[in-house]
Amino acid sequence: MKKQRISDAVIHRLPRYYRYLNDLHDKGVVRISSNSLGSKMGITASQIRQDLSCFGEFGQQGYGYNVSELRSEIGHILGSDNGHRLIIVGVGHLGHALLQNFDFGKAGFQLDAAFDISPELIGTSIRDVTIRSMDELEDYVAQNVPDVAVLTVPQSVAQPLADQLVNLGIRGFWNFTNVELSSEDPSVFFESIHFVDTLLTLSYRISQE
Amino acid sequence: MKKQRISDAVIHRLPRYYRYLNDLHDKGVVRISSNSLGSKMGITASQIRQDLSCFGEFGQQGYGYNVSELRSEIGHILGSDNGHRLIIVGVGHLGHALLQNFDFGKAGFQLDAAFDISPELIGTSIRDVTIRSMDELEDYVAQNVPDVAVLTVPQSVAQPLADQLVNLGIRGFWNFTNVELSSEDPSVFFESIHFVDTLLTLSYRISQE
Repeated sequence: MKKQRISDAVIHRLPRYYRYLNDLHDKGVVRISSNSLGSKMGITASQIRQDLSCFGEFGQQGYGYNVSELRSEIGHILGSDNGHRLIIVGVGHLGHALLQNFDFGKAGFQLDAAFDISPELIGTSIRDVTIRSMDELEDYVAQNVPDVAVLTVPQSVAQPLADQLVNLGIRGFWNFTNVELSSEDPSVFFESIHFVDTLLTLSYRISQE
Repeated sequence: MKKQRISDAVIHRLPRYYRYLNDLHDKGVVRISSNSLGSKMGITASQIRQDLSCFGEFGQQGYGYNVSELRSEIGHILGSDNGHRLIIVGVGHLGHALLQNFDFGKAGFQLDAAFDISPELIGTSIRDVTIRSMDELEDYVAQNVPDVAVLTVPQSVAQPLADQLVNLGIRGFWNFTNVELSSEDPSVFFESIHFVDTLLTLSYRISQE
């Protein structure tokens, strides 16, 4: 694989390619043309060819892409084979939904532990993950240094908690708090899910007629 | 306001502008330069000027943008003053989290009802929204024709449910099921939240060093 600087726009499209290729792979599809992939994804075939050319040579004129190969290659680029480990901090309804339903393995992550302050939750397990007391968080992170913390905590504690976890060595934050978090450490990354953005996009779409 | 065809890329950035402008407005900020707004948002001032020029004349050289004015204008473009009404279908952990915590009003939406199949939930209320039986869904939608349905149901029922609701007149779907939904009706819109996309982006970021 060629290594080159990849634009943010391409990086943000990669997970979507990966999702579609996973689906195709699960359905037993062996190869697909850039035209069919594009029409499924609602983008042009030339956009696909251009995006994928950032990573090397894929596919052949008149043959299309080998689904399994392209899927592993994109998974590799995304780091999904790096065995990243994560913890969930905050087991309210949203944390609970992630613990119960989200397929971390499909994204190449292993969920190791969850933390909450509620005495009713502490000590219980959801899908084999034990919920621990927030009092144990610091020791746990210092000892195990997970790669990513999922933040599903109240807004008021989001930034101080992130600061604490950065100091303990966590470099990735999957942020559901709707607070814009930041760190002065350039090796720390935040990816936030802002539910409201897609709802507003939907609002725009249904307002146009 | 000038009306013109606005690109998808700009439309997807608008909710983010709106979020930042809402924050600034809540903090009592009266005006802001494209430079400061850009540095907060991690984009260039010239990108901001170019995006906003799609909608008319905003801001003045050396003065910046009037936060309150720009916020209402973008809200207006996004249709957040159209009084859209929505229902939640599926009150599992995720549906519950939205009912309990999500500020629909801030996006200009009114949440009218929620539906589930669980006898323990039916008849109970969360923040003044009564959870009704799925058996009432069809009659309710036929009578009230909400603008948007939030889909927080199991994957297996997602597409048939969407088809049913489209037939009953719903044109907007806020889709949390992680299934790619579609409709042959071009006036129907789906906006999906794919949690895994941001987690994979994060995986990419922390894999780069």
